[in-house]
Amino acid sequence: MTTDYKAYFESLREQHLDQLKELLTIPSISALSEHKPDVAKAAAWIADALRTAGLEHVEIHETKGHPIIYADHLHAPGKPTVLIYGHYDVQPVDPLHLWETPPFEPSIRDGKLYARGATDDKGQLFLHIKAVEALLSQESALPVNVKFCIEGEEEVSSPNLPLFLQDNKEKLAADVVLISDTSLIEKGKPAISTGLRGLCSLEISVHTANTDLHSGTFGGGVPNALHAMVSLLASLHDEQGRIAVDGFYKGVPELSSEMRAEFEKQNFNEEGLRTDLGLDTLYGEEGYSFVERTGARPTLELNGVYGGFQGEGSKTVIPKEAHAKITCRLVGDQDPQDMLDKIERHLHSHIQPGAKVVVKPMEKAFAFNIDPSHPMLQKAADAYERVYGTRALFTKDGGSIPIVAKLSRVLSAPAVMMGFGLPDENLHAPNEHFNLENFDKGLLTLVEYLKMI
Amino acid sequence: MTTDYKAYFESLREQHLDQLKELLTIPSISALSEHKPDVAKAAAWIADALRTAGLEHVEIHETKGHPIIYADHLHAPGKPTVLIYGHYDVQPVDPLHLWETPPFEPSIRDGKLYARGATDDKGQLFLHIKAVEALLSQESALPVNVKFCIEGEEEVSSPNLPLFLQDNKEKLAADVVLISDTSLIEKGKPAISTGLRGLCSLEISVHTANTDLHSGTFGGGVPNALHAMVSLLASLHDEQGRIAVDGFYKGVPELSSEMRAEFEKQNFNEEGLRTDLGLDTLYGEEGYSFVERTGARPTLELNGVYGGFQGEGSKTVIPKEAHAKITCRLVGDQDPQDMLDKIERHLHSHIQPGAKVVVKPMEKAFAFNIDPSHPMLQKAADAYERVYGTRALFTKDGGSIPIVAKLSRVLSAPAVMMGFGLPDENLHAPNEHFNLENFDKGLLTLVEYLKMI
Repeated sequence: MTTDYKAYFESLREQHLDQLKELLTIPSISALSEHKPDVAKAAAWIADALRTAGLEHVEIHETKGHPIIYADHLHAPGKPTVLIYGHYDVQPVDPLHLWETPPFEPSIRDGKLYARGATDDKGQLFLHIKAVEALLSQESALPVNVKFCIEGEEEVSSPNLPLFLQDNKEKLAADVVLISDTSLIEKGKPAISTGLRGLCSLEISVHTANTDLHSGTFGGGVPNALHAMVSLLASLHDEQGRIAVDGFYKGVPELSSEMRAEFEKQNFNEEGLRTDLGLDTLYGEEGYSFVERTGARPTLELNGVYGGFQGEGSKTVIPKEAHAKITCRLVGDQDPQDMLDKIERHLHSHIQPGAKVVVKPMEKAFAFNIDPSHPMLQKAADAYERVYGTRALFTKDGGSIPIVAKLSRVLSAPAVMMGFGLPDENLHAPNEHFNLENFDKGLLTLVEYLKMI
Repeated sequence: MTTDYKAYFESLREQHLDQLKELLTIPSISALSEHKPDVAKAAAWIADALRTAGLEHVEIHETKGHPIIYADHLHAPGKPTVLIYGHYDVQPVDPLHLWETPPFEPSIRDGKLYARGATDDKGQLFLHIKAVEALLSQESALPVNVKFCIEGEEEVSSPNLPLFLQDNKEKLAADVVLISDTSLIEKGKPAISTGLRGLCSLEISVHTANTDLHSGTFGGGVPNALHAMVSLLASLHDEQGRIAVDGFYKGVPELSSEMRAEFEKQNFNEEGLRTDLGLDTLYGEEGYSFVERTGARPTLELNGVYGGFQGEGSKTVIPKEAHAKITCRLVGDQDPQDMLDKIERHLHSHIQPGAKVVVKPMEKAFAFNIDPSHPMLQKAADAYERVYGTRALFTKDGGSIPIVAKLSRVLSAPAVMMGFGLPDENLHAPNEHFNLENFDKGLLTLVEYLKMI
């Protein structure tokens, strides 16, 4: 007799949502050191959930940063081994005042679960744990061998996972790496990502006088760190939205007509996105569509800029320093270190007289690409079709999961990225949420996939 | 028998400094509404000090903002009436971590009194109260008629004083307005300011999408409020340090060779300033010296810029909004409202596609100028000579005291600006201080002046 997994998950829906909400109350922000105990708490929660699900050898590995959780269930000889990767850490939450409900007080509204981490990635990771639990409880066995490798540093570019991978290559060996940390194209249109952009990031600071100065007494006669900063930052792009750093496009593949046709197939609704975001117009590098800009072109984005007076009212000050945070998304063969070097050279050669710029390189990751004809990807597309009624398309994702390329390379296994988020779920922004339609369908799709391969 | 005021002030020095320190402990920051009670406390302190000094009709006038204090001593028939203006409010104190000692815990180091307001303007205002107290206590009379008009909103551009002036024109009538809120040229080189720059200020905000967005999923395909802001702000100046707003220089007088010669006389040490500030080079509009740039040329300065992530680490966000605070210093006949209109037009016409800019005009004040040949100014220069051993030069000050032009016009009296600060005393910045050499000499100079006129 075959289990009706739809009925099974429906009967446990409230209980599952309560469990996920419990996980979402833990502020496991990996970037902020004061949240270290919370990150540890989330790790313990995941380990418990894996044990409850029936996984074996559940281990919490301490690292120099946040812990990595391992677990397995290896009782399907002759069947493939699936390594499930996910992360239990989350992004910072500011600006806090823009959240309609507090980020760590999960709340369901209009069929959506709101909380930091709801979709990225606690919610999606939770689906895997519950899919395995369902199979084990209903069939007392798994159709495949399963390993979990769950980290707590994805949002800070996984500084400690690579060493763990190297040290535990045998233990983690798998035929396929399965990851749910991406999105459908839109509601009802599932997607499997076959590309992720790479990343490099940096912090810069601009310094002028050794003290803040009065804008009356000194104004017009001394350098202003904010003037130097804004003209420096403005110099990073040209009028056509292209990045003006010399040599930045080295390694970026030309977009072939085949690739353009593949992007075209998504039939992406730019007008709908524009309206949803309340914009007069989308904006980007001239000559490319939105999906091409985000899927196949590199970026240089300002994530934060600050200096001088930010309080109520006015303050007639000439600030002595200003700061900026920058992230680049990379594609093709762009080398993150080479890009950092080129940006640094640009900054030093464009700084205003009387000002100094200090550059601090941060994260680095190459882009990732996989051929969609791989059987493990084709089966994933079939699994979506059984549940969503429409086969998943193969897309290129604008985001970066720096560890994907490393996982795939170190373990010599294809990475299958089955995302269940939606592009407008505000990941990394206030009011992050997870559409529960994809919570329900995600559980079923993962059960189907594990049974198919 | 003539009092030896030098001996008199020496004998009371510790007592006077203790009193001034008491005033400096009150955080009377007029720009921040949470400090309203502190501003009121400072007003009460000043009123008490005026009463103690022997002033009569001491009144605290409530306004829509912070109180104005009036006091007088009118027992010198046939003698001129001096209206002493000053302010007891202070600038905000951030960034707090750059203060060597807390801003409201006055501390004397190396002959300098450190505290917010030490020189601007509590310390300088205090000199007038003690000079009048000295004359009254030693001679039981004043050589002139004296009125005090002390406000608590100078640092927020005196929004309520103009109405008070209009309503109390008779009561405040005077032959000269005396103000100490400016600086010597440098140690031992006194100055009387015959010009103050005008001012206009504004806040701007740039808005893009209705939510912050993930820089991976959306990066390169949507407008970024920070990009729009930095390119907008960078457009406000050209490569030569000139303000690039169309029509901004309307009303700015050409610098005549006579005026250039007057500036030359100051023999200002640009190299010394550069070294003091730890700069590679000074910076400003091409073709002008430092004293010309700050004394006779207008400015447009960024006082604060902020948007996006400012915390520890990185956050891959495309911010939906960015903010900036701007102050312009105006000279000659530049009309502050006209300048605000022109800047606003510039901002609207230079904003990037996909972004919107919102402009909030703030303060407005015309520049002030007076002919140095006026006898009340010549006598002030003489008073300095008696105490400092060198006659005061007539300078143009880069700062703005918006109320000076109004006081002078409404009361039809010349404004005499006898400053006792030094240009490097960090007013409006961390570690504001007042050199006690000018505290001592300031008391004597003011006594001399009141006796001379």
